[in-house]
Amino acid sequence: MFRFEILHRSSRSRARVGRIHTPHGIIDTPNFVAVGTNGTLKGLDNTMVDSIGLQLMFCNTYHLLLQPGVEVVKKAGGLHQFINRKMPIITDSGGFQVFSLAYGSVASELKSCGVKKQDGHVLKVTEDGVLFRSYRDGKFVLLTPESSIQAQKALGADIIIPFDELPPYHIGAEKLKNAFERTHRWEKRSLEEHLKNRNNQAIYAVIHGGVDLDLRKESAERLKELPFDGYAIGGSLGKTKPEMVGMLTELMPHLPLEQPNHLLGIGDLESLSRCVPLGIDTFDSSYPTRAARHGLLLIQQGGMKVTRAENADRLNPIEPECTCWTCRHFTVAYLHHLFKAGELTAYTLATIHNLHFMVELMRRYRESILRGEV
Amino acid sequence: MFRFEILHRSSRSRARVGRIHTPHGIIDTPNFVAVGTNGTLKGLDNTMVDSIGLQLMFCNTYHLLLQPGVEVVKKAGGLHQFINRKMPIITDSGGFQVFSLAYGSVASELKSCGVKKQDGHVLKVTEDGVLFRSYRDGKFVLLTPESSIQAQKALGADIIIPFDELPPYHIGAEKLKNAFERTHRWEKRSLEEHLKNRNNQAIYAVIHGGVDLDLRKESAERLKELPFDGYAIGGSLGKTKPEMVGMLTELMPHLPLEQPNHLLGIGDLESLSRCVPLGIDTFDSSYPTRAARHGLLLIQQGGMKVTRAENADRLNPIEPECTCWTCRHFTVAYLHHLFKAGELTAYTLATIHNLHFMVELMRRYRESILRGEV
Repeated sequence: MFRFEILHRSSRSRARVGRIHTPHGIIDTPNFVAVGTNGTLKGLDNTMVDSIGLQLMFCNTYHLLLQPGVEVVKKAGGLHQFINRKMPIITDSGGFQVFSLAYGSVASELKSCGVKKQDGHVLKVTEDGVLFRSYRDGKFVLLTPESSIQAQKALGADIIIPFDELPPYHIGAEKLKNAFERTHRWEKRSLEEHLKNRNNQAIYAVIHGGVDLDLRKESAERLKELPFDGYAIGGSLGKTKPEMVGMLTELMPHLPLEQPNHLLGIGDLESLSRCVPLGIDTFDSSYPTRAARHGLLLIQQGGMKVTRAENADRLNPIEPECTCWTCRHFTVAYLHHLFKAGELTAYTLATIHNLHFMVELMRRYRESILRGEV
Repeated sequence: MFRFEILHRSSRSRARVGRIHTPHGIIDTPNFVAVGTNGTLKGLDNTMVDSIGLQLMFCNTYHLLLQPGVEVVKKAGGLHQFINRKMPIITDSGGFQVFSLAYGSVASELKSCGVKKQDGHVLKVTEDGVLFRSYRDGKFVLLTPESSIQAQKALGADIIIPFDELPPYHIGAEKLKNAFERTHRWEKRSLEEHLKNRNNQAIYAVIHGGVDLDLRKESAERLKELPFDGYAIGGSLGKTKPEMVGMLTELMPHLPLEQPNHLLGIGDLESLSRCVPLGIDTFDSSYPTRAARHGLLLIQQGGMKVTRAENADRLNPIEPECTCWTCRHFTVAYLHHLFKAGELTAYTLATIHNLHFMVELMRRYRESILRGEV
């Protein structure tokens, strides 16, 4: 059922326009993937998310494993049924969160200022997997390549991700190499577990190697040998956007042209504009939804801080041509008021707009590529 | 344009079924009025509130006066336009909040355990009105009968309320009598201000007198002499439900039969069942929406605490026959999960259900009265 179809390749860059076919419908690429960690985008219900046309939603296995737990999702018939989403879902392996907890927050880890602040949670990392304590109830949880894949089978996402190790940024070369070797052994074990029961799901490899280009290339070469359905790029790509772009520019030619790829955890507006020409197909990020909750509304000119005084009496929609629910029904002045008054409705309406903006932005990227402009 | 039509009177009680006609449509009575203090029900947008069929929404002039301010609402063409609500709105005068701030929280004041904890906010109460400081920006605001009515004219609610004084519970008889006299002078001034420019709005008097039945009766008799369009019952009616019911049982025969009445700030399920037979037409309360945000879902059997462990795998709607958006799309298990995960979406979905429940409950009350059962 899973199939990637390339409709057009740019002659000016590595950008391409494609379609990922999944059991829950098509994902037009390049596309943006919103993050619904707990099976919901913060402030929206999933019928609204479907109606906005967000074609792929990212859910976190780590969180869902601990709450509500896999059993109830399985009993519901899978994550789509449990959360009432009709369109495709991608889940990660849980590895990223487990290791982030061990080495500090996700953000600080990626910005390479991680400190081992919560290492009490991760009790043991062995060849088998990771033993950690649930942040919810303190219970021991053993996450292995096999158990991660089994959890993702039970969740039933359209695209799943092998269990990997996210090494901390500041470790020595030998330890890094050890982590690198182990993550590839874990990915292989994940794939083998997956192949026992494909369950109509696709599995993307995760390319590792941190900021070491040689390791990144080696990771790509090794993973290409295995029958993965697509390639995700994980871990730190550097401290700055130019470093990230430099790394991806070198790395992308080593990925198979005919398979879809995904950039994990990066999807701000500037990164999109830099990475679409590099041939990235999908991007997940909580940027637009988090920005919305902070009152930053995405507009063609960049962003509008809705709480600024000048917006108090702007009795127009956020963008005059925008067709989102929020712009069709409410004004900037009303949103300004809701944010000032601390009303929950503010977060919902802002999130609807920002998500719609991303859907439209990616549609425009695809059109630009088709027109030969990217 | 404003008109009250009585369709049926119970022969068993004072209950009646009626219709309040307003410029923004009909309010079937008896009915429940949800509180959208800042021009929104917490967690919902007003198109959803309209679609649930909530026929009257209560907004607070005090809050709207301070944020967003009357000018921007006026510029938008009124509160209906500003918040995008198609159906009727009632606003209060601001008096209740100003005095609540002076004497303690609204809840503690009504439960008569008020302490003068924030009296720095109210600077001066004179015959003219109340001078207070904005909790938002510290600016001085003078609220008088005239300025309250002018603000309510600018907001443009279908039903408005005269500026009144809410005396603290524990004051001597003389002070109480003074406050009582003044509140009636203020109501008269409010009415006079209103009559200068009806603006297609109706004005309800507020019957005062606290827990003193003689004062309550006197208040009703005096206000009946004036051309108000309806009668609201304000202030404390006692410390317990039986006291409240006792007071209303005595008081209601003193209200004009042919005009609509409203019970201010009371709308929990038990009070509704006790007060509908006493002939109350409309009730405002934040109970169902606040309960929703605390995970208490209203059901025919009373209430379901959604976060209880037994609801973790209840893969059914809250109520099998419920036709609300939440019940049509999501299960109790999913709501349980959203609450456990602290997701904003939980508050929205629970509020939709509880509000729909209230709309249906009041419809059933009207049917019961029509069938002669109440």
